[in-house]
Amino acid sequence: MSNIKNDLLLRTLRGEKTERVPVWMMRQAGRYLPEYMVLRGKYGFFERCQTPELAAAITLQPVDIIGVDAAILFSDILVVPQAMGLEVQMIESKGPVLPDPIKTLNDLNRIRVPNVDETLGYVFDAIKLIKQELNGRVPLIGFAGGPWTILCYMVQGKGSKTFDEAKAFCYMQPELAHQLLQMITDTTIAYLKGQVAAGADTVQIFDSWGGLLGPDDFENISLKYIRQIVAALKDDVPVIIFAKGAWHSLESMAAIGAAGLGIDWCITPQMARKFAGDNITLQGNFDPAKLFSPIPVIKKEVKQMLRAFGKGHHIANLGHGILPNVPVDHARAFVDTVKEESAKL
Amino acid sequence: MSNIKNDLLLRTLRGEKTERVPVWMMRQAGRYLPEYMVLRGKYGFFERCQTPELAAAITLQPVDIIGVDAAILFSDILVVPQAMGLEVQMIESKGPVLPDPIKTLNDLNRIRVPNVDETLGYVFDAIKLIKQELNGRVPLIGFAGGPWTILCYMVQGKGSKTFDEAKAFCYMQPELAHQLLQMITDTTIAYLKGQVAAGADTVQIFDSWGGLLGPDDFENISLKYIRQIVAALKDDVPVIIFAKGAWHSLESMAAIGAAGLGIDWCITPQMARKFAGDNITLQGNFDPAKLFSPIPVIKKEVKQMLRAFGKGHHIANLGHGILPNVPVDHARAFVDTVKEESAKL
Repeated sequence: MSNIKNDLLLRTLRGEKTERVPVWMMRQAGRYLPEYMVLRGKYGFFERCQTPELAAAITLQPVDIIGVDAAILFSDILVVPQAMGLEVQMIESKGPVLPDPIKTLNDLNRIRVPNVDETLGYVFDAIKLIKQELNGRVPLIGFAGGPWTILCYMVQGKGSKTFDEAKAFCYMQPELAHQLLQMITDTTIAYLKGQVAAGADTVQIFDSWGGLLGPDDFENISLKYIRQIVAALKDDVPVIIFAKGAWHSLESMAAIGAAGLGIDWCITPQMARKFAGDNITLQGNFDPAKLFSPIPVIKKEVKQMLRAFGKGHHIANLGHGILPNVPVDHARAFVDTVKEESAKL
Repeated sequence: MSNIKNDLLLRTLRGEKTERVPVWMMRQAGRYLPEYMVLRGKYGFFERCQTPELAAAITLQPVDIIGVDAAILFSDILVVPQAMGLEVQMIESKGPVLPDPIKTLNDLNRIRVPNVDETLGYVFDAIKLIKQELNGRVPLIGFAGGPWTILCYMVQGKGSKTFDEAKAFCYMQPELAHQLLQMITDTTIAYLKGQVAAGADTVQIFDSWGGLLGPDDFENISLKYIRQIVAALKDDVPVIIFAKGAWHSLESMAAIGAAGLGIDWCITPQMARKFAGDNITLQGNFDPAKLFSPIPVIKKEVKQMLRAFGKGHHIANLGHGILPNVPVDHARAFVDTVKEESAKL
């Protein structure tokens, strides 16, 4: 069916038995790689995202250098608010800044659900180029932010530990918040459909701030919209949801038709399996800070993680993005240990 | 036994049936109160902590203005590293900065387990003054940070979303980390015993960053030391543990002799009760950002929270500190609704 040589990831997402556990790392095309740092030194952040040749080169790096079982598009979740008409600046050591955040109905009138071919066509071009250069070696993962997480940045205007202003916006102006969430959702569906049309083999929804919401709010503010996205995409490609910290809603997330659920290291694989049920693939959950441990410790802990997930229905990954200062050979030890040890399971 | 007029909090911590649910708010002596802002404008942060008259005045404000059922000492968890010999600066809008953090064995030799009467006597003086001025109206809660949380600041040198450097320190130099954790623990035990001797009626351990650790690490890096603190204190006063986000370890925390466990809004009271068992008092768990909602919504949600906790074994509180911009009447609506509605349960 698939003309991808190493399709372990896709087969695992379909629930098939595989010869070993597939492995990739969130932010695998990132600052721990000296080859990435060279391109980061030469080009600005959005220049890297918006130039298909650069995005493709960066996307391919961890496939070539680390040997991961999937490529993930190099881009950022904030290209969506950008395409909707909001200015997004990326300050290299500080993170994103949106100088004119959404606070009122008037602000909402400044933005729109855009034509994604016009505003995000550069992503689709990058995907076509990546697929060409991958030449069927491994699958390509497309992605977008969860609507609640995108709202966080659009309202707060910058990163935050708690996104209080974004939450206050939802509690003080619920109608406006839902209007904004729907606009983000509509944009995201068109955007992800465009990614799939360009060649993405699967897509992941990063709801990085899902864990800031209690269970009821997660349902009303986040999952309600993720559900629409999954419904629109799931017949085309398998969808992975990673709502970091939202362990309390694994059961509801498992019920909406996603093929995989990401989990972080703060929940045991056993507990996650209990909540999510037996039929969904779980992805995770190595603590990224543990990649600073000596390599023998990394190997021991990876084995322990693999045993805890058990046979099948598991994509090995970190519980969050790889950290900038991790030594490359530590990242490689993580990936290699998954490959070697999971084959023995 | 107790000569405190309103001892609802203490009776609830002892597991007794009470006529209604006691209520207080983390950071209740804080920036949402105009009366606090007046003193904040006049005196520096540590000046407010170190001047018993100021600390006492600030501690009393929410008792007088909002009518909470307990006072909590106005201070900061970082007075402990300060007493251990580390410089701590408090930059008003930015948070704490420790300019010479702990990174090596040499750094460890710069600090010590101090004589708490010499270094933290001002806290004990404040407590005596507060007790005098409270004159038995409500109990006084003393507190300290959990050793892991204190290590976070001592190693990272400032606030952080993920405290990667602190975690890397623990993974790269585990022996050094445990040596530091033990020094913090020994200091904290002496410090809390001093608070109790001065008149604190109960103490709370704030492990604000406990939720950054996975279950195994939480046991080895955090709970192992909290256990020592609880063991040393529990025969003197009831101890409350608030390890924010560490829902996965509620069962182990309930087993170490604490009288109460704090929970945040990301876990339902029902689920927390299931993990923690029937015999411990739970404290929480209103989302602090929800205090921005219109007052009728606050009332509705407080009722819902009270029903979810059920009768007894509950101290109403927020799931984290009250936010700076919350209107005073919204805070009062929270407290009043708990008082009125819980009497009807």
